[in-house]
Amino acid sequence: MADKTLRIFRASRNTRRRPIMLAIAGDSAAGKTTVTAGLVEALGAHRCVWLSTDDYHRFDRVERQDKPFTPLHPDCHYIDILGQHLQLLATGQPILKPVYNHDTGRLTRPELVEPNEFVIVEGLLPMHNSLARACFDLTVYLDPSEEIRRGWKVKRDTATRGYTAEQVLSVLSRSEPESTEFIRPQRAHADIVVRFATIEGRPNLSAELLLRPTIQQPDLTAILQPDLTHAIHLRLARDTDGKPVDSVHIHGYATTEDGAAVEKLIWQSLGDPTTPPPPSLGRVTPDAHSTPLAVVQMILLHHLLAGTP
Amino acid sequence: MADKTLRIFRASRNTRRRPIMLAIAGDSAAGKTTVTAGLVEALGAHRCVWLSTDDYHRFDRVERQDKPFTPLHPDCHYIDILGQHLQLLATGQPILKPVYNHDTGRLTRPELVEPNEFVIVEGLLPMHNSLARACFDLTVYLDPSEEIRRGWKVKRDTATRGYTAEQVLSVLSRSEPESTEFIRPQRAHADIVVRFATIEGRPNLSAELLLRPTIQQPDLTAILQPDLTHAIHLRLARDTDGKPVDSVHIHGYATTEDGAAVEKLIWQSLGDPTTPPPPSLGRVTPDAHSTPLAVVQMILLHHLLAGTP
Repeated sequence: MADKTLRIFRASRNTRRRPIMLAIAGDSAAGKTTVTAGLVEALGAHRCVWLSTDDYHRFDRVERQDKPFTPLHPDCHYIDILGQHLQLLATGQPILKPVYNHDTGRLTRPELVEPNEFVIVEGLLPMHNSLARACFDLTVYLDPSEEIRRGWKVKRDTATRGYTAEQVLSVLSRSEPESTEFIRPQRAHADIVVRFATIEGRPNLSAELLLRPTIQQPDLTAILQPDLTHAIHLRLARDTDGKPVDSVHIHGYATTEDGAAVEKLIWQSLGDPTTPPPPSLGRVTPDAHSTPLAVVQMILLHHLLAGTP
Repeated sequence: MADKTLRIFRASRNTRRRPIMLAIAGDSAAGKTTVTAGLVEALGAHRCVWLSTDDYHRFDRVERQDKPFTPLHPDCHYIDILGQHLQLLATGQPILKPVYNHDTGRLTRPELVEPNEFVIVEGLLPMHNSLARACFDLTVYLDPSEEIRRGWKVKRDTATRGYTAEQVLSVLSRSEPESTEFIRPQRAHADIVVRFATIEGRPNLSAELLLRPTIQQPDLTAILQPDLTHAIHLRLARDTDGKPVDSVHIHGYATTEDGAAVEKLIWQSLGDPTTPPPPSLGRVTPDAHSTPLAVVQMILLHHLLAGTP
């Protein structure tokens, strides 16, 4: 028998361009969709593939009821197929992507996905294993405080997924061990960690961004301007593992005017100084804007555009 | 940016064994399922993946009504994804296979398929492109006379798919140009071509097998025994392209006893002389047996077993 691998290799003429790939991992209701939506709109949806790892559910909602684990467990997903599909997209090849319908809780016919300039993969477990991680140019972990995340999850799941607040809180408490075992370890593999938090008595969120030197991070020395240090500052810090890291704080007690000044400054130092920042950056809802969110998205946008040839 | 391909390669530790892969191509109702069913039962279903290329339908039955082509056209299939999935199986990797339901005419949730010792891929277009062909160890084209195939198709589609005979004949006539353009050219890429035919006034089918020297074909000189030449004979012939080929004729006018003797002879020279041939070989229906079918399946079985380490 001939060497089949070689025959296959020779028969495949893979001259396609590879996309820039971004992973956005985080627990349920950590803000993944909100971060991704603004980013995709800023890049242009026609240039992006937006992939949710929820589509790789192995079981539908009814089947999951009998299972000894929650959807946070890798065994609840086609996790090897997800890795395979990431690998195919990363090498410029199309996939036939499974589809999970959140409204009905059912798995439906798969759909063809061709790689595009940018592939953004958001979900519970995009960085679970080393093969998947090898496919990304940039990895992000969203790490809001548990208090904030609980609030977000109750709000979303009662509003759009038909659950009561008690049901959501019960789900959160049941999934806590699997969050610890499978979701949070991905934080260690992120190039950028984003922590949203609240400050007592303030309506706005603050955010801390860890920019790890695992990739070429943008030059943010411009934000060291003394007149904005009450709104944003850059600090050399130690990561949880003791390694040096850049830490950017965006303060939740800054005024709207300070926030606008911060966004302008970041956009001018990272983006195109001759144009205003895309209006989708920082958009929490059609009516609510967040400076910490906008800054996170600007830094991700910078990385994605810097990665293009 | 690091060399992503290399990182992916290093992160994937593909130490899985490669399956032996067989393609059985042919037009609608050429006998693909019948040949495959007996073969899978003889090998043991637990050792086989049986894959139908119909699952790679791009459109469901309703959507196909508006299309300017029939299901014989490659554009009616996810033909590149089929090639990709064959490549994955051939290199020992699992696939998330799409599923087409012939009863409802709908595409449903995909299913996980792990490669097994043997992967048998039967359908309209398994050998359509060179990448797909490179994945197979053995390729077969079923080429019954058009008269026989029309009869088989009318019988099956009226009995199990709810069509009238007139509808089936109309489908056949509409699909003739695409049969010529896409299905029949695969004949040129087969290691074995099987032609079933009828002989005027005889109930049994005859068969001609072309065994092309594109692979190591079994030694069939045993069937040159003079006392069976009226039932089966081996002949050196020229293929349609003028190349030398072995041609095995199994005559439809042989008696049941002759048929049994032929099968015994072939089984003893190719299979295990100490055991009887598996009862599934030659089974057309639970009550009908065909010696030409049994001989075809024995030769395929020989190839599949010879290919195993």
